[in-house]
Amino acid sequence: MRHFLLLVVYFLYLIQNVHATENRLDMAAQRRATNIHHMDTIILLTYVSIMVLIVLTAWAFKHYRLRFIHESGVTLFFGLLIGFVIRYFGLGLLESQTFDVITKNRTIVKEPPDYLMLEVKPEGGSRVSFHYELIEGFFADKRKRKEQQIEQKSVFSPEVFFNMLIPPIIFNAGYSLKKRHFFRNIGSILAIVFIGTTISCFGTAFLMFIFTTIFRMGFTFKELLFFGALISATDPVTIISVFNEMNVEADLFALIFGESALNDAVAIVLSQVIENFSTASEAITLHDVGQAVAGFGGVFFGSLTLGFGIGCLNAFVTKMTLIAEHPLLESSLFVLISYISFLLGEVCGLTGIVSVLFCGIAQAHYTYNNLSTESQNSTKHFFHMISFIMESFIFCYIGVSVFVTNNQKWNFGFLLFSLISITAARAMFVYPLSFVLNIRRRPQIPKRYQHMILFAGLRGAMAFALAARNTATENRQIIFATTTAVVIFTVLINGGLTAWMIDYLKIKHGKDAIEEGQRLERGMNNLNQSENPDDPNVPVSMAPPGLNPWDKAFLPRKWYHFDASFMKPLLTHATPSLEQTLPPLCLPLTSLLTSNRQKAGETSTPFEDSD
Amino acid sequence: MRHFLLLVVYFLYLIQNVHATENRLDMAAQRRATNIHHMDTIILLTYVSIMVLIVLTAWAFKHYRLRFIHESGVTLFFGLLIGFVIRYFGLGLLESQTFDVITKNRTIVKEPPDYLMLEVKPEGGSRVSFHYELIEGFFADKRKRKEQQIEQKSVFSPEVFFNMLIPPIIFNAGYSLKKRHFFRNIGSILAIVFIGTTISCFGTAFLMFIFTTIFRMGFTFKELLFFGALISATDPVTIISVFNEMNVEADLFALIFGESALNDAVAIVLSQVIENFSTASEAITLHDVGQAVAGFGGVFFGSLTLGFGIGCLNAFVTKMTLIAEHPLLESSLFVLISYISFLLGEVCGLTGIVSVLFCGIAQAHYTYNNLSTESQNSTKHFFHMISFIMESFIFCYIGVSVFVTNNQKWNFGFLLFSLISITAARAMFVYPLSFVLNIRRRPQIPKRYQHMILFAGLRGAMAFALAARNTATENRQIIFATTTAVVIFTVLINGGLTAWMIDYLKIKHGKDAIEEGQRLERGMNNLNQSENPDDPNVPVSMAPPGLNPWDKAFLPRKWYHFDASFMKPLLTHATPSLEQTLPPLCLPLTSLLTSNRQKAGETSTPFEDSD
Repeated sequence: MRHFLLLVVYFLYLIQNVHATENRLDMAAQRRATNIHHMDTIILLTYVSIMVLIVLTAWAFKHYRLRFIHESGVTLFFGLLIGFVIRYFGLGLLESQTFDVITKNRTIVKEPPDYLMLEVKPEGGSRVSFHYELIEGFFADKRKRKEQQIEQKSVFSPEVFFNMLIPPIIFNAGYSLKKRHFFRNIGSILAIVFIGTTISCFGTAFLMFIFTTIFRMGFTFKELLFFGALISATDPVTIISVFNEMNVEADLFALIFGESALNDAVAIVLSQVIENFSTASEAITLHDVGQAVAGFGGVFFGSLTLGFGIGCLNAFVTKMTLIAEHPLLESSLFVLISYISFLLGEVCGLTGIVSVLFCGIAQAHYTYNNLSTESQNSTKHFFHMISFIMESFIFCYIGVSVFVTNNQKWNFGFLLFSLISITAARAMFVYPLSFVLNIRRRPQIPKRYQHMILFAGLRGAMAFALAARNTATENRQIIFATTTAVVIFTVLINGGLTAWMIDYLKIKHGKDAIEEGQRLERGMNNLNQSENPDDPNVPVSMAPPGLNPWDKAFLPRKWYHFDASFMKPLLTHATPSLEQTLPPLCLPLTSLLTSNRQKAGETSTPFEDSD
Repeated sequence: MRHFLLLVVYFLYLIQNVHATENRLDMAAQRRATNIHHMDTIILLTYVSIMVLIVLTAWAFKHYRLRFIHESGVTLFFGLLIGFVIRYFGLGLLESQTFDVITKNRTIVKEPPDYLMLEVKPEGGSRVSFHYELIEGFFADKRKRKEQQIEQKSVFSPEVFFNMLIPPIIFNAGYSLKKRHFFRNIGSILAIVFIGTTISCFGTAFLMFIFTTIFRMGFTFKELLFFGALISATDPVTIISVFNEMNVEADLFALIFGESALNDAVAIVLSQVIENFSTASEAITLHDVGQAVAGFGGVFFGSLTLGFGIGCLNAFVTKMTLIAEHPLLESSLFVLISYISFLLGEVCGLTGIVSVLFCGIAQAHYTYNNLSTESQNSTKHFFHMISFIMESFIFCYIGVSVFVTNNQKWNFGFLLFSLISITAARAMFVYPLSFVLNIRRRPQIPKRYQHMILFAGLRGAMAFALAARNTATENRQIIFATTTAVVIFTVLINGGLTAWMIDYLKIKHGKDAIEEGQRLERGMNNLNQSENPDDPNVPVSMAPPGLNPWDKAFLPRKWYHFDASFMKPLLTHATPSLEQTLPPLCLPLTSLLTSNRQKAGETSTPFEDSD
């Protein structure tokens, strides 16, 4: 103990003799780090607190069955409120320094460089160069420099949206897809998604072009096409959760959910193709259009194949190894590989969103069955929760951005006409397409479904994120502001009126819808039994649940057969195994690819799906 | 159909006539956004792919029972490899522009400002101002400008570490604390954590000060104290997972886990106190030291109270509302509130890490019992997985940073002496403290435990993150590089030799340890039965599992009593309820605070904990 005291005294002696030779730069860096940290945590705290409020409000709304405004509406509203506070109250008053600079050789800069380098000469020290990075999406307002730091800090880079926030939401859409009803309506969904979204994109662009030409607003057709593409991405969140609560008819649910799950993908590919379009040539030729269509197909199906392939790869790994013994590693692998499907898609010049969506579908269809029970639960809850949190955050952020970002330029004429033309463009495909589909479809898409689909055209995260990506010019800023307003408007108005609309259109819900579903089911099963026996290769117990007896299409049926006799035995522990489904010729190979569980015939129970 | 064709033709006509009036700025922004996105996704893909490899390797190591190198060692190794590739191969060759600038009024800059503003005048357009932000921790190397962008992009801001990556790891440490053995050794753990870490900090600083003074390296004592504080944060990951696999003696496990779980908190508070210390005055007086000690106590216990309080608040909310009916909302609330405990701590000028650790403990102790079964599982798995992924990422990043960051300055003399002095400083507290503790402690801490505790001084994420925070001066950069090297060295060497060391020190593991544990348990229960009846207020079935029969301390016993008769009935559905434990006088209030489940006596089964 005495030694320790002696040490302490000696310490103090030492310290007394050390003069403060602290470097100015060190102290400045210290102060700056503290400031930045303080600001970052304040902003994060604000967002997270709002989200706690949102969760509590959402619970209260669910508990007291309030439906006049939906939780995403509430989220938007809170966001707007916070943005307002940040903008007009003292929150932004943090000290920061901004210097005006010119290039060293005094040339005029025509394009902003990515980095600047400034030499700093601290008192009594030697020169040090500091690096500065260009901030996108933030424009200086010379009158109020001090206030801007917190505003700017509370703006996220569009990169964060695309790389971090949106992929889990889309993956979850694929992973939690209710496959039964989805595949029963697959034909109509694909028609709405591909043809519908394209019509909506071009229709909006065309109507807006007429309008902007009349009012001489100086938008190019390409800019408006881009606007048309991004605004065609509908967002399911609000409507779907009302549908879920009210138990509406399953087919309508499948149509609207299917559209919104897939059309983000189409919209993003369309907007990419449009962006890359015509930057080379002065005018658009038919050849360019052909190339664009081919590009669209290539990118969409390339991304689809990539994502689905990665999902299959994960299924294969989980089947052939015993990683299920370590659920933590297994579920981490699952999450990481799913994220890779997004990143690899982006790196390869494809569309990560499409890729991650189909990876989610493959993971649900194959990998899910190989996972340990613990991982099945944990991956499901993980993605469900992450996607809920990300979604709430995005809606909150959309609200905040109205007041805080400086790269939104409001033009109310443009906004008003946008609302009209996106509704018109949506009507342009809903009714004609339903008419065409109804020629062969049984049961038909009744009028009340068509009205509901038109009404369900809410916009959300994807449209916002696409618009936020490039706001360099004034036109882009008008597009960004308009998109934000359209999102807010549709979520508040259409979202709030959904429950009322369901009643008004006399759409069956609750008990009625369940009875209707059971009636249809019985009808289908009868049809199934009378029609299926013509395909003796598929045992009745293995008939895929989504097989639509009314769908006479050749390709889907081929796919189901291939899936049941090759993909599932290859990628999961399902029986019959490859040894049974493939010709005996391939025995050495099939034996290798058949797991012990399959050999023991352990999973002779019906194949389980994630829903 | 004809109408549609007509429309298409009209479109083409329109587009033909629109001349390319695209703005140069727009195109530049487009190109820049594409470039940045491409680079970001490449970097993310690299990291995520490495992590997939790590998970697979970890599984293979577990499966084949390889113990010569641990998974965090593998992770570090992969990180080093990737860093090497990024640095010396073509990966970095992405185009970017860097301009040298001077201030507009040509003054000499003494401290780097936070922002720069540069005017850009595009051809045929009007002037636009662009904002540039200071990048910390990145120093320009004039010879190779082009290559730097990808290197710089793969460096994360220390902010990301502190606000995003570390909190979930620390929370998980608290949430998954094995309370039984932890509380049995609480006295020794607290002694090691508070006294030990302080001795280690000052001991390291003192030894390093002697060394740097002899070799005239120009370090101030404050800088070395800071180094001592940050390098005293030990990291449990590697050792603990080996211990877990080998089933070592529970008390040793508790001591080492307890130390590493809590000493991060002490180290971070110490380093904060040191950083704020003496910046005002020229020399340190006894008054300053007193203030620092008071500051330390205030910050530590303030943070503890805040975090624990927030956990209790969450418990209270989950108890008094029916949010458990909606597991998604419930678990989202749980995650968000836990994160708030960190952020609020930081914003209030306390230590978020301490706060989030004790929030985790409170959440496990109270809230966990109120959650629905689904949320219990999903929160546990969520934090387990997140913390695993974050940890792997950090180890990988530490490896990458060696080659990629420009703010590490290597000084091998400093490094060598650091390794010696941190070991010496650790020995300085392990042996004397064990000696003192052994005077009253039964069972004693045997010599083999003491050697193991000394050996278990691995450094990890927290030390690295603390060192990365400020690298403005050369000395700071030497400290950063040294810390990185110490982390790598201890994880590879000590981590790799753990299994061998356990055998060498003849520490019981596997079956032996389990038998030993059961023998001790029996002994304890006998003691329990003979000693406990003197406290009739605590029913035997409610006796907290951590109650240490050897621990005669007054405070812990008071706390256990308070916990069982007030906190648990107030915050959970546990019985006896407050109506039973509080005097009848408070009936109106207690009745309000007693849930229906408590009134029905539903949870008369023994109180469950999260472990």
